[in-house]
Amino acid sequence: MNFSPLDRDDLRERIGVELTAFLAERAAELGEISADLDPVASTIRDFVLDGGKRLRPAFAYWGWRGAGGAAASDEAVVRAVAALELVHACALMHDDVMDGSATRRGAPSVHERFADVHRTAGFAGSPTGFGRAAAILLGDLTLVWADEMLAASGLPIEATVRARPAYDAMRTEVMAGQYLDVLAQAQPSVSAERALRVARYKSAKYTVERPLHVGGLLHGCSVALLDCYSAYGVPVGEAFQLRDDLLGVYGDPEVTGKPAGDDLREGKQTVLIALTLEHGAPAEVAAVQGLLGDPLLDAAGVQTLREAIESSGARRRVETLITVRLEQGVAALAQGQVEPDAATALAELAEMSTLRRA
Amino acid sequence: MNFSPLDRDDLRERIGVELTAFLAERAAELGEISADLDPVASTIRDFVLDGGKRLRPAFAYWGWRGAGGAAASDEAVVRAVAALELVHACALMHDDVMDGSATRRGAPSVHERFADVHRTAGFAGSPTGFGRAAAILLGDLTLVWADEMLAASGLPIEATVRARPAYDAMRTEVMAGQYLDVLAQAQPSVSAERALRVARYKSAKYTVERPLHVGGLLHGCSVALLDCYSAYGVPVGEAFQLRDDLLGVYGDPEVTGKPAGDDLREGKQTVLIALTLEHGAPAEVAAVQGLLGDPLLDAAGVQTLREAIESSGARRRVETLITVRLEQGVAALAQGQVEPDAATALAELAEMSTLRRA
Repeated sequence: MNFSPLDRDDLRERIGVELTAFLAERAAELGEISADLDPVASTIRDFVLDGGKRLRPAFAYWGWRGAGGAAASDEAVVRAVAALELVHACALMHDDVMDGSATRRGAPSVHERFADVHRTAGFAGSPTGFGRAAAILLGDLTLVWADEMLAASGLPIEATVRARPAYDAMRTEVMAGQYLDVLAQAQPSVSAERALRVARYKSAKYTVERPLHVGGLLHGCSVALLDCYSAYGVPVGEAFQLRDDLLGVYGDPEVTGKPAGDDLREGKQTVLIALTLEHGAPAEVAAVQGLLGDPLLDAAGVQTLREAIESSGARRRVETLITVRLEQGVAALAQGQVEPDAATALAELAEMSTLRRA
Repeated sequence: MNFSPLDRDDLRERIGVELTAFLAERAAELGEISADLDPVASTIRDFVLDGGKRLRPAFAYWGWRGAGGAAASDEAVVRAVAALELVHACALMHDDVMDGSATRRGAPSVHERFADVHRTAGFAGSPTGFGRAAAILLGDLTLVWADEMLAASGLPIEATVRARPAYDAMRTEVMAGQYLDVLAQAQPSVSAERALRVARYKSAKYTVERPLHVGGLLHGCSVALLDCYSAYGVPVGEAFQLRDDLLGVYGDPEVTGKPAGDDLREGKQTVLIALTLEHGAPAEVAAVQGLLGDPLLDAAGVQTLREAIESSGARRRVETLITVRLEQGVAALAQGQVEPDAATALAELAEMSTLRRA
């Protein structure tokens, strides 16, 4: 049987079903403590279920299939890999607090939703502070629940124990990568090399390599297969982040769910920006140095930056980096250790997650 | 052998040794990612090792001993229960961000330390924002590491799996309790009943009952013993929080590590405050309504509030609530299901953690 787009949609839906069921149980648990916690449960549910490409669970699932897991008996594994979506939900909620982002996937971010609750109810104190506190706690809860979902998937305990080192590394690396990202924003003019290192930890290992390892280890697999997953996952994951950086500057808000130019206002120190500074003409460099990170940057400023980045050649260079990495990653799949259906699926996932969308 | 204060200090030190070793491994891991992460590792280490009474690990340890765990073979269990201190470190780091507290245990809070790093290095952007982002991420890392430490304690896998439901409940309840606390601060004039419910989840179950359950289940124990631990843990834990509320208003900053009157400035809706509002004379109620939660409250304002709370009888009422709960909790130990050494230790821990210190 060949992997088809239908399978992909089907997997995405099945992950959603597992998350729905798990979060309903947690909501019932919170409800027993106090009805005041209903908005906590419903906001986590809406945040997790209203969007997301379920990339991390998908990579983990195909990591399991690639190691020889059988489609006919994959129920518990779908539950186990869905837990990765909860880790990601925490990372996003906390990321939005750290960046002060007002929106996520086209809807208000969690801290904004709770600030609104505060305003609507006429609570005492600062709506911003209340929203921030709530988003920190909701993220913490979601992170803790990820763990609980993985442990309670129904897979044999040995399987979960085997996958733990990869799961632990994934969580440590995303937090470490996020810190390096925050640090880079505070130290403008980072090199392309350093920006790429941030992308590797914050995104490539976290989104692709480690989920594949989790899946492979849940089934039980050779070190050679783990190495193959790394050879595929790191370049594909970097390409994914490089695409995300391009979308952050040139993407259609309808597609990205974020206002145009948000990454520029936040002063994100991406590879794209680093390459502009490294190769740009003086006027292009001056545009970046003068405008990047200005929280009040207007549409004209966004346009100026877009043009400076484009004319410096950085956009083209990043497109080339993506192409090279995509080819390199997909080539690693041909080493024959990955089960054929999974290899096909992973090649498609690589294409899809690094696709030119703007 | 009777439990003596020497054992208690010894246990505290052994927990510190395990935390030191575990955090050194994590620091090495972060160091391999980037030397830029050194301040992350060292700040977590200092925060965890520089203080704390290790109450949660101590209750968990004695929960294990009370179920029949032998002192002669307790190495792995000391490692396992030390993990609870890491959950707590996350809760404190995030709590300080949420409250905007500048100090913790007499030293700058984590977000303040990183804001200082930002200022000293002359970084770009807001020191406050940088400090907050760092403290959120350090808390997340610490929470994730708690898990890792528990899983890698060296106890048989079945033991850890048995203890998981209590560990999971502990984590969910503390986050839920924290949210209810934040909500109560936003809705002044909560009833004493509601304030007590917050204390139950945020503190009593989290600090005493659930750690005892974790310890009991790590060894394997009867439902009757878990019930006995609840009958001891909930009242003792409530008494602990009620003492903390009193210290927040009347405590010596030298002892509490927090500036005098901080709880009053933050507008904490404690049982102490609720009882003042419920039983106070009009002038006492007016003092609370007019001054509580004023971030600029000065020494004279703190004094006015202290006197209003005292003269309303609330301070005396809370002392009575503590005494009743302490007696009730310790009486539950006499039901004979807890191993004698552990019963003695738990009676002492109850005294110690609810002691009048101001």
